[in-house]
Amino acid sequence: MVNIAVMGYGVVGSGVVEVIYKNRESILKKCGKIIDVKYILDLKDFPNSPYQEKFVKDFNVILNDDDISVVVEVMGGIEPAFTFVDACLKRGKSVVSSNKELVAAKGAQLLKTARQNNVNFFFEASVGGGIPIIRPLHQCLAANQIYEIAGILNGTTNFILTKMIKEGMSFDSALKLAQELGYAERNPSADVDGHDACRKICILASLAFGSHVYPQNVHTEGITAITLEDVAYAEDWGGVIKLIGRANKTEDGKLQVMVSPAFIQNDSQLANVNDVFNGILVRGDTTGDVVFYGKGAGKLPTASAVVADVIEEVKSPGTVRSLRWEDSTGNNVEDTATYQAQMYVRAQGQKAKKEIEAIFGEVWYLARQNQPLDEVAFVTPLLKEGELNHQFQQLEAAGVSILAKIRILDY
Amino acid sequence: MVNIAVMGYGVVGSGVVEVIYKNRESILKKCGKIIDVKYILDLKDFPNSPYQEKFVKDFNVILNDDDISVVVEVMGGIEPAFTFVDACLKRGKSVVSSNKELVAAKGAQLLKTARQNNVNFFFEASVGGGIPIIRPLHQCLAANQIYEIAGILNGTTNFILTKMIKEGMSFDSALKLAQELGYAERNPSADVDGHDACRKICILASLAFGSHVYPQNVHTEGITAITLEDVAYAEDWGGVIKLIGRANKTEDGKLQVMVSPAFIQNDSQLANVNDVFNGILVRGDTTGDVVFYGKGAGKLPTASAVVADVIEEVKSPGTVRSLRWEDSTGNNVEDTATYQAQMYVRAQGQKAKKEIEAIFGEVWYLARQNQPLDEVAFVTPLLKEGELNHQFQQLEAAGVSILAKIRILDY
Repeated sequence: MVNIAVMGYGVVGSGVVEVIYKNRESILKKCGKIIDVKYILDLKDFPNSPYQEKFVKDFNVILNDDDISVVVEVMGGIEPAFTFVDACLKRGKSVVSSNKELVAAKGAQLLKTARQNNVNFFFEASVGGGIPIIRPLHQCLAANQIYEIAGILNGTTNFILTKMIKEGMSFDSALKLAQELGYAERNPSADVDGHDACRKICILASLAFGSHVYPQNVHTEGITAITLEDVAYAEDWGGVIKLIGRANKTEDGKLQVMVSPAFIQNDSQLANVNDVFNGILVRGDTTGDVVFYGKGAGKLPTASAVVADVIEEVKSPGTVRSLRWEDSTGNNVEDTATYQAQMYVRAQGQKAKKEIEAIFGEVWYLARQNQPLDEVAFVTPLLKEGELNHQFQQLEAAGVSILAKIRILDY
Repeated sequence: MVNIAVMGYGVVGSGVVEVIYKNRESILKKCGKIIDVKYILDLKDFPNSPYQEKFVKDFNVILNDDDISVVVEVMGGIEPAFTFVDACLKRGKSVVSSNKELVAAKGAQLLKTARQNNVNFFFEASVGGGIPIIRPLHQCLAANQIYEIAGILNGTTNFILTKMIKEGMSFDSALKLAQELGYAERNPSADVDGHDACRKICILASLAFGSHVYPQNVHTEGITAITLEDVAYAEDWGGVIKLIGRANKTEDGKLQVMVSPAFIQNDSQLANVNDVFNGILVRGDTTGDVVFYGKGAGKLPTASAVVADVIEEVKSPGTVRSLRWEDSTGNNVEDTATYQAQMYVRAQGQKAKKEIEAIFGEVWYLARQNQPLDEVAFVTPLLKEGELNHQFQQLEAAGVSILAKIRILDY
């Protein structure tokens, strides 16, 4: 029997306890031991919970109980999660976390502390919810040089975009529906502004390329500016708009990391990832493209990923794994001005086409139903983003208003 | 430094050696040790190989060298692979295999022998080539009760079907092209008759449900009878034809396992798995649907999966994992007559519709261009296969010839 503690009894935490007791028998079969929850740490009271006697409010009860060798952190946020996790690792307790904010901000440091104390810091659930991605990345794909990762990493924005694309809903209506269904928070900024996707691509990039990528160094755009006009032009182009987090390593070893909406071709595996699902594409030198697809969030998918990490730890305690990356000063990410990019542009202006062709040369024009006479949509050539931005300034200086621009990706 | 032996220097074997030396540095980083190939076992001579001095023809050289703790078996076939693997495990050497025929026929036995000798028998590469699926199944999805698996498991047949669907090629022309491109063997039976897909679904079902599923107990249909007419009717229905291997556990604990062509809806994740790619859908009680997608075959993808297993073994030697299932007498698979099924049927006959409706009641008729007047295509109700077969007999007795029938699946 292995006793664990669960810190945080919100959506994921209650799911973890549920999965542990519901699948008790198959867990026993898989790791040869019964896993029991000895403590649940939460400041709130849960008078109707069947686990009444397990609740504690004082973290030190967990920290000082040597009977607890594995601690689950599903509190979210950086503090006090960081202080608690750090203390547990230093006391020789392995920690399993679903907290992407914590891993994106402090991953390198916590992994180092775990190594120094011969325990593990696991966080499969922090990216892709129930989709196994962290472990395949460092383990099953170990014989690969991974050179690119791109993914639909946020279920809420993917739900909103799917409603816009498939049902012609406006962004505002789709967001409202997402909130009603519980997919979006009342303050939806972390999702719709791309911060959540940014934390996840930072974790994946850090693990794949071995050097901590910090969210504050990653150019991040959300989907709040996407309109049904853009959706219609994307359709004419032969694709859909998705919020993509992506990271790749250049030949000189620098990293390019970005979160932004993007046009994705209809026959791409990522184009068919709809609703609250996530899809993550990993490109390696030997495997080629591998895509992982599934529910990226939700109580039980996320909880099952947490419990799988707990099982892994119970099966092989004390083993320090290949799950690691080094800290960085943050200058490991290149400036976006140097990234190669092709963009869809929606513009407005009399004689806009003449100005567009004067600046960009021959371009591919897109069309939509009910297109106003003074609206033009086109695809730029593939250039460095810095050069494109310079040309966009020229275009605006020539009296053409740019209403929207969205990157075009080739996955 | 860890010395390994590679048995078999065909496509996969040479790929394994190539990946080990090409990614030497990143492998060292990931497992903390240099992996070196000490022996390559092959009866053929390779006078121009740079690894000349490593070749041996006598298996006992490998077996009796205590310096070798990990052996890679990429010979294919059941014998002598089984004898060699069995002997290695009994001598305390872990074995990594890509040999699906061996695992499907002898998996339970070899896993038991490995356990008894405190070593590992790993076979990530046996299913899905470079796609991580075996390890996620028993490890990352450990907190799940898996109740269904369905996949496009054979790249050759998927390439042929894709050419038929997208380019209107006939089966024969598409097969010829596959042979020219090296995707199909000169004798293509193992692929086009479904045997390869059958071995893979047997391995996945054995692992997911814990009881050995033997290929000879699994109803297996290939794609040789699929015509462009069927492809056209599938399009009218709103989908495509794919060769699907699938397995699920019924409520009374019996297994339903089958390989057959199937109609798959266009918006399914499996419908968009094209060319030589594979896609595997895993349904668990807590994660919901998770899909793994990637190159299911080929030298480097398969080799990278083999090397990832080797790295795993080198990182944690002697650890016996949750990779296991029990042997069975073969009566763990239900008779197909009891499976629920809905079928597309293409039939021929004067007044066929009258007979069809007399037997099946109201049905959904499908249409295609240039449809002959005496050809009818329709979708049956959802019934047990035994009942459907009885109705098909009635239909033929009434003078209607059944030209094709293909299952309709809902993934």
